[in-house]
Amino acid sequence: MFEAAELGRKVSKSEYRDTLPDLRTCLVNAQWRLRDSGVSVLVIVEGVEGVGRGEVVNRLNGWLDTRGTETHAFWDVSSEEQTHPRYWRYWRSLPSRGKIGLFFGGWYAEPLVRGATGEWEDARVEASATRIRDLEHMLALDDTLILKFWFHLDRDTQKQRLKARREDPDSRWSRRRNGDKLLDYKALLGVGETLIRATDTAVAPWYLIEAADARYRDLTVARTLLETISARLDATGPAERKEALSHAPSLPEAEAARRTVLDQVDLGQSLAKPRYRKRLEEAQRCLRSLTWKAFDAGRASVLVFEGWDAAGKGGTIRRLTAGIDARLHRVIPVGAPTDEELAHHYLWRFWRRVPGAGRITVFDRSWYGRVLVERVEGLAQPAQWRRAYHEINDFEQQLCEHGILVHKFWLHISGDEQLARFRAREKTAYKQHKITDEDWRNREKRPEYEAAVNEMVFRTSTEHAPWTLVPSEDKRFGRVAVLETICERLEAALD
Amino acid sequence: MFEAAELGRKVSKSEYRDTLPDLRTCLVNAQWRLRDSGVSVLVIVEGVEGVGRGEVVNRLNGWLDTRGTETHAFWDVSSEEQTHPRYWRYWRSLPSRGKIGLFFGGWYAEPLVRGATGEWEDARVEASATRIRDLEHMLALDDTLILKFWFHLDRDTQKQRLKARREDPDSRWSRRRNGDKLLDYKALLGVGETLIRATDTAVAPWYLIEAADARYRDLTVARTLLETISARLDATGPAERKEALSHAPSLPEAEAARRTVLDQVDLGQSLAKPRYRKRLEEAQRCLRSLTWKAFDAGRASVLVFEGWDAAGKGGTIRRLTAGIDARLHRVIPVGAPTDEELAHHYLWRFWRRVPGAGRITVFDRSWYGRVLVERVEGLAQPAQWRRAYHEINDFEQQLCEHGILVHKFWLHISGDEQLARFRAREKTAYKQHKITDEDWRNREKRPEYEAAVNEMVFRTSTEHAPWTLVPSEDKRFGRVAVLETICERLEAALD
Repeated sequence: MFEAAELGRKVSKSEYRDTLPDLRTCLVNAQWRLRDSGVSVLVIVEGVEGVGRGEVVNRLNGWLDTRGTETHAFWDVSSEEQTHPRYWRYWRSLPSRGKIGLFFGGWYAEPLVRGATGEWEDARVEASATRIRDLEHMLALDDTLILKFWFHLDRDTQKQRLKARREDPDSRWSRRRNGDKLLDYKALLGVGETLIRATDTAVAPWYLIEAADARYRDLTVARTLLETISARLDATGPAERKEALSHAPSLPEAEAARRTVLDQVDLGQSLAKPRYRKRLEEAQRCLRSLTWKAFDAGRASVLVFEGWDAAGKGGTIRRLTAGIDARLHRVIPVGAPTDEELAHHYLWRFWRRVPGAGRITVFDRSWYGRVLVERVEGLAQPAQWRRAYHEINDFEQQLCEHGILVHKFWLHISGDEQLARFRAREKTAYKQHKITDEDWRNREKRPEYEAAVNEMVFRTSTEHAPWTLVPSEDKRFGRVAVLETICERLEAALD
Repeated sequence: MFEAAELGRKVSKSEYRDTLPDLRTCLVNAQWRLRDSGVSVLVIVEGVEGVGRGEVVNRLNGWLDTRGTETHAFWDVSSEEQTHPRYWRYWRSLPSRGKIGLFFGGWYAEPLVRGATGEWEDARVEASATRIRDLEHMLALDDTLILKFWFHLDRDTQKQRLKARREDPDSRWSRRRNGDKLLDYKALLGVGETLIRATDTAVAPWYLIEAADARYRDLTVARTLLETISARLDATGPAERKEALSHAPSLPEAEAARRTVLDQVDLGQSLAKPRYRKRLEEAQRCLRSLTWKAFDAGRASVLVFEGWDAAGKGGTIRRLTAGIDARLHRVIPVGAPTDEELAHHYLWRFWRRVPGAGRITVFDRSWYGRVLVERVEGLAQPAQWRRAYHEINDFEQQLCEHGILVHKFWLHISGDEQLARFRAREKTAYKQHKITDEDWRNREKRPEYEAAVNEMVFRTSTEHAPWTLVPSEDKRFGRVAVLETICERLEAALD
C-alpha cells in the first residue's frame, strides 16, 4: 500500500508561492465558518520517522488562526496520566465544537511504537485498533470531522534525512519517539499497515501523503484540510454531511504532483514472440503441476482481473486457464448483476462464487467495480463506495484466514495504446462486438479512473492480498508476467 | 443483565386468544408491504437450552406467509461448508430484499458453544464478536433490518424443562447442540453476556425475551417483529429509517406481562432506628479503613447514583461520604451541562471526572441521563440514546480495565411513597427548594421511566459494572444497603 506514496510527487517553488496566499485565505475563512457550525475537527498526524511531522504542524499553526486551533503532543505518559485509564489523556485533549485539534500521533502512537518494537503482539495491536475504530466512529457521529494523515518516506530518503538531522546541531533537541532508539523502518510500516487497514473507515479515513518534497507535503495537507472542512460545512442534512467527506482531495496543479501508482509502471517492457512462446509454455507447465499440488493440499485461489478496457484481460485469462485442468478452475465474468444478485448485498454475488478447497476461481472484473466504475460513474453513492474499501478488505481477509490465496491484477496500458486497440477492434469484424460506446465514454474519464486506481491500491493492497500492476502495453509481456507471478505465489504458499 | 428476563411475565390463555387474530393479520399485511420495499429482515434466534427456539420458529412460520420466509438451521458444518471460509454458509443463506430470514443461532452459535465449552478462550470470542459487529453493521447499511432474540429461562425452570423433555418419548428426536452434551448453564450465560454486550448495537439490537411462559414468549416475539418492520417501512429518509428501529416494543396488554426489574425489588424491607444506627456506623467504620486500603493499593472507585426523584440519593451520598476521608473522595452533582461541556461529546464531562489512582468519585446522577431523562423527555434523538448503551458499556469497560471499581445504584421507591415525600417537602420550609414543577411532571411519566430502567439494566448491567437496585422505601434500609454493598465489593476487590 505504501507504494502509493513513493511516486516522486513534487511542487515547484513558484507554484507553491503562487498557490499559497489564496489557500491561506480560504483556510482562515473555512475556520471562521467552522466556529459556529457545531462541528469539531480532529487532525491526526502520523508516519515514519523523519517525515517532518513537527514542520507540518508548525506550518498549519502558522496558516490557521491560532485562536481556533489546539496542538497536542502526547509525550511519555505523565504521572497524573498514569493513574487514569489509557484514553483519559486523549479525551481531555479533544477539540470542542468549532475548533481544530492537531494531534501528534494521538491514540495511534502507542500501538504503533509498542507494535514495532515487538512489545505488543499482533492480537493486542488489533484489539487496540478495534477500540480506536469504536471511538472514532462515536466521535464522528457526534459531529467530529476526523482526518488522519500518514506521512511516508521511502527507506533511502528516510536514511538521508535522519543522517542530515544527526549532523545538524540545531535538531538535536527534536526528540525521537521510543526514547533514543530508532524504530525499525520495516517493523513500523508493518504495524502501520495493520493499523491503517483496521481503522481506515468512511467516517475517519486515512490520507497517505508523500513527504519527500516538503512543499508538496504541506500544500496537500492544507488542501485536504480545506476541502474536507468546506465539504462538511456545505452539506446540509446529517446523512449528506457524512458523505461529504472527501476521500481523494484535489491535488496541486503541477503535473509532478498528480502522479499515480500507474505512472510507476514501466510500459516499455516487451517480449519477442519466440521467447514469449517459450516462457508462456514453461509457465503453463509450471501452473499445471502447481495447481494440482495446491488441490492436494486443499489450498484454493482467487484471482482478480481488473484493468483498462482493451488491456487484454480476456486474452490473459485464456492463457492462464489453458494451463489449469478444467476440473480445477472456474472463470466468472462479472457484468451487470442479476435480479437475484441485486436483491442482496453487493458482496453476496462474490461470496457465492468463493472456491472450495483446492479450486481456483478467476474473476474477470470483480467486487472492485464498487470503487472503480460505480464510483466514477456515480452508480454508487459516495458513502457506499467509501465504506467499500473496509468491507472489501474484511472480505479478502476472511478468504485468506481460510487459507485461500488472493491475487489481484491491474492490467495497465497507456491511453495511446488503448486508442490503437479500440481502432483495431472496430476494423476487425470478429472483434467489433468487443468495442461499444461505453468503452469510448470510459476512455474520456481516464483521469478519474487513474485517481480511483491509486486510491484503490493504497486502501486495498495488503500483504495477504496484494495488487500487481501489470505492464500490458506489450500483450505478450503482460500475459507472461501474470502467469509467472501466480506461479511464484503458489510456489511460495505451498512450500 | 439476565435478571431482566426473570420477572415471571405471563399472558393468559384468553388474552392470547383475543390478541392473536389481529396480530396475525397485521403481520401478514406488514410482510406484504415488505415485499417491494427493498428491505430484508433477518431474525436471529438464540438463548439457553430448553427455551423452545424451535417452537418459536414454527409458530412464526405458521403466522407468516411462508412464501416470504426462509428458515435456516446451521447444523454441524457440512463437508462442502468445511471447504469454504467460515461465513460462507451464512452468506448463502442471507434473505433477499423483501424477505424474512429466520436464523437458528446463525453466526452466534459457534462462538457461543465453543466459548461455553472452553474450547475458545475469551480473546477469541471477543474477536469473533468484532467480526459479527462489522458484518451486521454492513448488512444494516444495506437495508437489512436485524432483530436478535435471546430467549431466557432461569436455571430451575430450565432444569424442569429439560427433565420433562427427556421423559417425553416424542422429543428425543429434537437434537441438542454440542452433540449430546448439555452446555453448562452458567458458562453459556457468561459467554452469552460477553457476546450480547459486544454486539448490542443501535442497528442490530438484542431483545431479551423471557421464555418461561410460551404465550408471552410467542406474542412478544410477534409484536416486536411487527412493530420494528412497520416502523421501518413507515419511516421515509434513510437516516430516519435507522432510527425507526424500536428498542422497547410495546408489551402485551396484561399487567403480568408488563413487569419490570423494579417489580422484583422487595420494598417491604425496613430497619428500626437503633439497629440502623449501629449498622450505619459499622459500615462507615468499615468504609473508612477499606477506602484507605484501596488508596494504598491504587484502586480507584466510581460510584453512580440514579433513582426516582425523592428516593433519597442526596441523603445516601451524605452518609456515604461521611465514612470516607475527605481527601479521598469527590462528589459530582450532574445537572445541566456547562457551555464547555455542551461543546464536547456527552461522555467528555464524565471522562474529565474519572478519579486518579485510589480516589473515589461519586456521581449524583450520571451518563445514564442519556438513556433515562434524555430518552423519556425526547432531549436525545432515538438514534443517539440507542447507541449510548454500547458507548456507555465501552466507557465503563475502559475504567474497569484500568482497575477502577464501578458500582451503580438505582434507588427505588413506590409511586405512593414518592407522592408522600413530595407533599412533605412542600410543607417543610427548608425542603421546599427540593421540589419543583419538573418533579411533578417526571412523576407522570413513571411508566416510561420504568421501561427505560428495565432496558438500561438489561443492556448495561455487566459483570464488571453491575447495577444494584436498592429498596429505598425505608430510607434507613436503603442507605445501609448501599454502604454495605460498597464495603463488600471493596473487600472482594482488595482481597
